[in-house]
Amino acid sequence: MIKIAIMGYGTVGSGVAEVLQKNASSIAHKAGQPIEIGRILDLREFPGSPFANRFTKDFGDIENDPAIAIVVETMGGLNPAYDFVKRSLLAGKSVVTSNKELVAAKGDELLAIARDRNLNFLFEASVGGGIPILRPLDQCLAANEVYEIAGILNGTTNFVLTKMIDDGASFEDALALAQKLGYAERDPSADVNGDDACRKICILASLAFGRHVSPSQVKTEGIASLTLDDIRYAEAWGGVVKLIGRAKKLEDGRLYCLVCPMFLPKESPLADVHDVFNAILVRGDAVGDVMFYGRGAGKLPTASAVVADVIDEVKHLNRRKSIFWEKGEEGYVIDYREGRDKSFVRLRCENPEATWAAMTTELPGCQRIRAEGVPAGEIGFITPFLREQELENKLDALPGTQVISRIRVADF
Amino acid sequence: MIKIAIMGYGTVGSGVAEVLQKNASSIAHKAGQPIEIGRILDLREFPGSPFANRFTKDFGDIENDPAIAIVVETMGGLNPAYDFVKRSLLAGKSVVTSNKELVAAKGDELLAIARDRNLNFLFEASVGGGIPILRPLDQCLAANEVYEIAGILNGTTNFVLTKMIDDGASFEDALALAQKLGYAERDPSADVNGDDACRKICILASLAFGRHVSPSQVKTEGIASLTLDDIRYAEAWGGVVKLIGRAKKLEDGRLYCLVCPMFLPKESPLADVHDVFNAILVRGDAVGDVMFYGRGAGKLPTASAVVADVIDEVKHLNRRKSIFWEKGEEGYVIDYREGRDKSFVRLRCENPEATWAAMTTELPGCQRIRAEGVPAGEIGFITPFLREQELENKLDALPGTQVISRIRVADF
Repeated sequence: MIKIAIMGYGTVGSGVAEVLQKNASSIAHKAGQPIEIGRILDLREFPGSPFANRFTKDFGDIENDPAIAIVVETMGGLNPAYDFVKRSLLAGKSVVTSNKELVAAKGDELLAIARDRNLNFLFEASVGGGIPILRPLDQCLAANEVYEIAGILNGTTNFVLTKMIDDGASFEDALALAQKLGYAERDPSADVNGDDACRKICILASLAFGRHVSPSQVKTEGIASLTLDDIRYAEAWGGVVKLIGRAKKLEDGRLYCLVCPMFLPKESPLADVHDVFNAILVRGDAVGDVMFYGRGAGKLPTASAVVADVIDEVKHLNRRKSIFWEKGEEGYVIDYREGRDKSFVRLRCENPEATWAAMTTELPGCQRIRAEGVPAGEIGFITPFLREQELENKLDALPGTQVISRIRVADF
Repeated sequence: MIKIAIMGYGTVGSGVAEVLQKNASSIAHKAGQPIEIGRILDLREFPGSPFANRFTKDFGDIENDPAIAIVVETMGGLNPAYDFVKRSLLAGKSVVTSNKELVAAKGDELLAIARDRNLNFLFEASVGGGIPILRPLDQCLAANEVYEIAGILNGTTNFVLTKMIDDGASFEDALALAQKLGYAERDPSADVNGDDACRKICILASLAFGRHVSPSQVKTEGIASLTLDDIRYAEAWGGVVKLIGRAKKLEDGRLYCLVCPMFLPKESPLADVHDVFNAILVRGDAVGDVMFYGRGAGKLPTASAVVADVIDEVKHLNRRKSIFWEKGEEGYVIDYREGRDKSFVRLRCENPEATWAAMTTELPGCQRIRAEGVPAGEIGFITPFLREQELENKLDALPGTQVISRIRVADF
């Protein structure tokens, strides 16, 4: 019998307890021994809970209990989760976390502490909820040189975009519906601004390419400024708009890493990912494109990923799993302005046809998009591959125009 | 440095050698030591090969070489692969195979031999080519009670169906194109008849539910009798036709297992899987629906999965991985006639409207489908959930009719 502690008895933490209890016998079979919840850390009271006698408000009760071999952190946020997880590892306990903010910010440091102490630090649930992605990425693709990862990493924004695309809802109405259905929080800014997706692409990029990528290195754009007109242009072009987190290895070994809305062609496997579903596309030199799809959030999906990590740690109590990455480095992620992309551009202009004529001279290879139902007095087009600065220079050279929107175009 | 042998230097075997050579340094890093190809077994000559001096025609050269710790079997077919793999295990060597026919027929026996000798027997490449599916199924979903698996498991037939659906090609023309493009073999019967998909669903079901399922227990229907009219009905109903391998756990613990064409609603994540791509949907009580997608075949995708298994075996030379299932059992898989499904039925009838009126009396709850471009003198409809025998009895009760086609309807 192995004893674990759960820190944070919110949605995910209580889901972990529920899954451990509901599937106890098959979990014990898979882990090789029963798993018992020894302590639950939470500042709140849960008087009716079946675990009522195991709650504590004092982290010391976990830290100083040598019988607790594994600590599950499902508190979320950087503090005090960072302190508690670090101290748990220093106290000789393996850790499982679902906390993407923590892993994206401190993954390299915590992995190094775990390695030095022959412990495991696992976090499958931090990306894609219940979708198995980190372990397949680490193990099954071991034979590949992975060169790019791109994903729909946030269910809330994907739900909002699905409602805009399928039902013609405005951004505001779609977000209100997401909140009503419990898919978006009252303060949805971390989802809408792309910060949540950013943390996840940082974790994926760190693992896939072996060096820590921190959110501060990743240019992040959200979806709040997207309009139905942008979506009409995407439709006319033959695709959809999705919020994509993306990391690409460049020839010089550095990464081009970005979170932003993108035009995706209808043929892209990511284009068919609807509602709150997440999907992660992994591109390897041998395997080609592989995609992982499922619910990226939710109590039980996320809890199931946490519990799978717990089982894995029970099975590897005195052996390390191979998940690891090196410390981050300044300059490892290029300035996004150095990255080259095709872009969709909408220009407000006094004389659209004259601007388009000038544009084709200024920047040969642009492809005009004519969409129905968009305002007069503007043009929309797709550029060739260009650096940010190059594109800005070209657009500045066109008098009497104003950029309405600029959305990168995916090649996956 | 660890020495391996490759048995069978065809498409996959030579791909394994290529990946091992091309990504040698990152593979050595991941495995913890370099991997060297000690011997290659093949009856053919490969005079120009960089491995020319390592070829042998005698399995004894591998079996009796104590320096070879891991044997890769990429010969395909049951014989002599079964004999060679078994003898490799008995000689104390771990084995990796891409051979679905072997694993579907003999997986339980080979896993037991490996377990008894503290060796590993891995076969990630046998299902879904390079798509990581067996390991995520075994490890990441450890916390779930998986209750159903359904997949597009054969790229050739999915290509043929895609051409029929998208381009209106006939079955014969689509198959000829697949052969021309190298997606179908000259004798495509194992693909077209569903036998290949059957082997893969057997492996998935065995692993997911813990007991061997053998191809002889699984009713298997191919796609050769599908017509464009069936596809027009599916379209009118709001979906597509796909060849699905499927295993479902029933309440009494037995399995309902089947390979057959199915109507899939457009909203199904499997409906958007086109061309030669494969996808496997896993349904768990906690995680919900998770899907794995990628190229299900091809030299390098399949080779990358084999090499990932080799790396895993190098890392676990004296420790067993947990992949295992029990011996098969008669009666564990129900007779398909006991399984309940909705079905699409096409009836040729002298008087369609009279037959439809009789049908709605005979079997309330049927849903008529009116498709354009289909022959006169027939009706098409979807039945409620029924056992095979129940459906046949109902149809027999309608005089002057003849069943043109009968296709099951998916609820995923």
